[in-house]
Amino acid sequence: VRNKPDPISIAACVDIGGTKALLGLIDRQGNILAREMFYVNAEYQPATLAVELADRMRSLADQYNLDWKRVCGVGYSTTGMMDVENGIIFTSPNQGGWRDINYGHILEDSFKLPARIEMDANAAALGESWLGVGKKNNPFILLIVGTGIGAGILIDGNILRGWRGTAGEIGHMCIHPDGPPCNCGGRGCLESLASGPAITLQARQLLNEGRVSSLMKPFQSNLLTTPIIFDAARQKDPLALEVIEYCVDALSIGMTNIIHLLNPKMIAIGGGVGLGGADLLLEPIRLAISRRVGPWVDFAGTHIVPAQLGNDAGLYGAAWLVWNHIDQVKIFN
Amino acid sequence: VRNKPDPISIAACVDIGGTKALLGLIDRQGNILAREMFYVNAEYQPATLAVELADRMRSLADQYNLDWKRVCGVGYSTTGMMDVENGIIFTSPNQGGWRDINYGHILEDSFKLPARIEMDANAAALGESWLGVGKKNNPFILLIVGTGIGAGILIDGNILRGWRGTAGEIGHMCIHPDGPPCNCGGRGCLESLASGPAITLQARQLLNEGRVSSLMKPFQSNLLTTPIIFDAARQKDPLALEVIEYCVDALSIGMTNIIHLLNPKMIAIGGGVGLGGADLLLEPIRLAISRRVGPWVDFAGTHIVPAQLGNDAGLYGAAWLVWNHIDQVKIFN
Repeated sequence: VRNKPDPISIAACVDIGGTKALLGLIDRQGNILAREMFYVNAEYQPATLAVELADRMRSLADQYNLDWKRVCGVGYSTTGMMDVENGIIFTSPNQGGWRDINYGHILEDSFKLPARIEMDANAAALGESWLGVGKKNNPFILLIVGTGIGAGILIDGNILRGWRGTAGEIGHMCIHPDGPPCNCGGRGCLESLASGPAITLQARQLLNEGRVSSLMKPFQSNLLTTPIIFDAARQKDPLALEVIEYCVDALSIGMTNIIHLLNPKMIAIGGGVGLGGADLLLEPIRLAISRRVGPWVDFAGTHIVPAQLGNDAGLYGAAWLVWNHIDQVKIFN
Repeated sequence: VRNKPDPISIAACVDIGGTKALLGLIDRQGNILAREMFYVNAEYQPATLAVELADRMRSLADQYNLDWKRVCGVGYSTTGMMDVENGIIFTSPNQGGWRDINYGHILEDSFKLPARIEMDANAAALGESWLGVGKKNNPFILLIVGTGIGAGILIDGNILRGWRGTAGEIGHMCIHPDGPPCNCGGRGCLESLASGPAITLQARQLLNEGRVSSLMKPFQSNLLTTPIIFDAARQKDPLALEVIEYCVDALSIGMTNIIHLLNPKMIAIGGGVGLGGADLLLEPIRLAISRRVGPWVDFAGTHIVPAQLGNDAGLYGAAWLVWNHIDQVKIFN
């Protein structure tokens, strides 16, 4: 069974993380007609999750009096390594046990609709490009700074995937070769310097040196988080400001490298850290980049802006997958 | 006057550097039917150079009994900032005084043939992709390590240009934020660590510290060059080996960043330093990259190889421009 997209069509959209799944029913104009969040965990089996997603999506449509016949495809955004053309998830940190699962096929089985999968950073970049800050900005890069650091890179509207689909691993660009160890086994990667865990680690290290700071109390109570560090920086706490400077330094070097390499028209910063600290980070980053980029051309013209769609970017990107691919791709099975 | 390409067509190809211009007459199969080199300097005016190029190209055809009627277009490779679509050279280090010159137009006037211009690293990457190591390797990156460091990046056979045409400035990727000053005003750029001048500077600094080395004599006679340093390294001179290690470190960090960001199938290393030191550089670079890249996917699968076409890559790329664009583009005037 396959419904053809028409002007009143609806996309069934899923953006799945490590702990939460966002569901949305989105029309061709990009309106979210209905939405729901539910908690997931790493134990879900592929088919069980797909059946639950389909059941919940149908109930959601019912609840909002949306005719299920209008739903013409499934867009699915997730983390991990995958072959999007063939719908195969090789590995996903969200669902630790999955290996080489043809999830496109499984989603199509449970929804009885064509499905399309995408990596989360790419889906979010597509969303921002369709309905957010990325509109008409080419090349467009969405840099996601959160627990990890990743990016979706769009060139002429197409996702830059590279040879094996792993392009965009900006978090593992080496910024300080002798810097702190990174999860990837390297040292001084952007992610080891400017992600949420890197920021709190840096604050803890300075506090362990006995530095005076308003952060000492939350630190001693084991309550030190990025938002608390950002708030302290807004109150001009010197230690917090030093941590911000450290983060700005790393991000501005990474972004300068991206600008030299890809000459994007826009880099939008998203993610919990990137958006939560936008007021503290963006202007210093812009200044540092303008000092670092080559003067022989106006590299600094690259627009550095906060992302616009927040947590919904991936959901919008999932809808974009449906509107742009469902009619062209074969059904996986 | 415009000749349509046909199977016996010939491309008039120019690859112009700071001191030398290479001319070639190249057929559709990529055979160089005739070639010539002559010396140029920064004083050439745009029209004077174009007229000399056209005159020399016609004489070259005569000399090899090639019917000028077979020549159907001009491909021109040069350094600098340019708008290739419109044939405009904004600035070029080779011809210091040129500003915003519509050189496509000027070449067409002097040759009475359609013309196409391209940045040198991009032209060389197109040449290597058409006839050299780059064949069937997508994405393909030609990393040119010489007096400067630059790159041509091909994705699905198309040059990655970015917003304002300045993509590929790999030489100004920041490798060591506290490293030596770079011409661009930054610090620790790849070019300031691994280009020809950076390599000899590093050797001179170590020699100035009074280190024992077979390089002391050429250093004192002001004859220290990259080939001499490479030769000393081949003789296991410890100071020369240390310089090689320094260069390998910088190149492997830069290339790891490129691999994480773009996931290319192949990076070919060209340029005087890259090819002259390939036997010393490539294997250590491969080893360092395999240690640096993220282990969660076989990034290290990216092939790291020497470029194949040497100094002719740009000439072949200029021919490719003719075969692939002349029939599609408007004549600039």
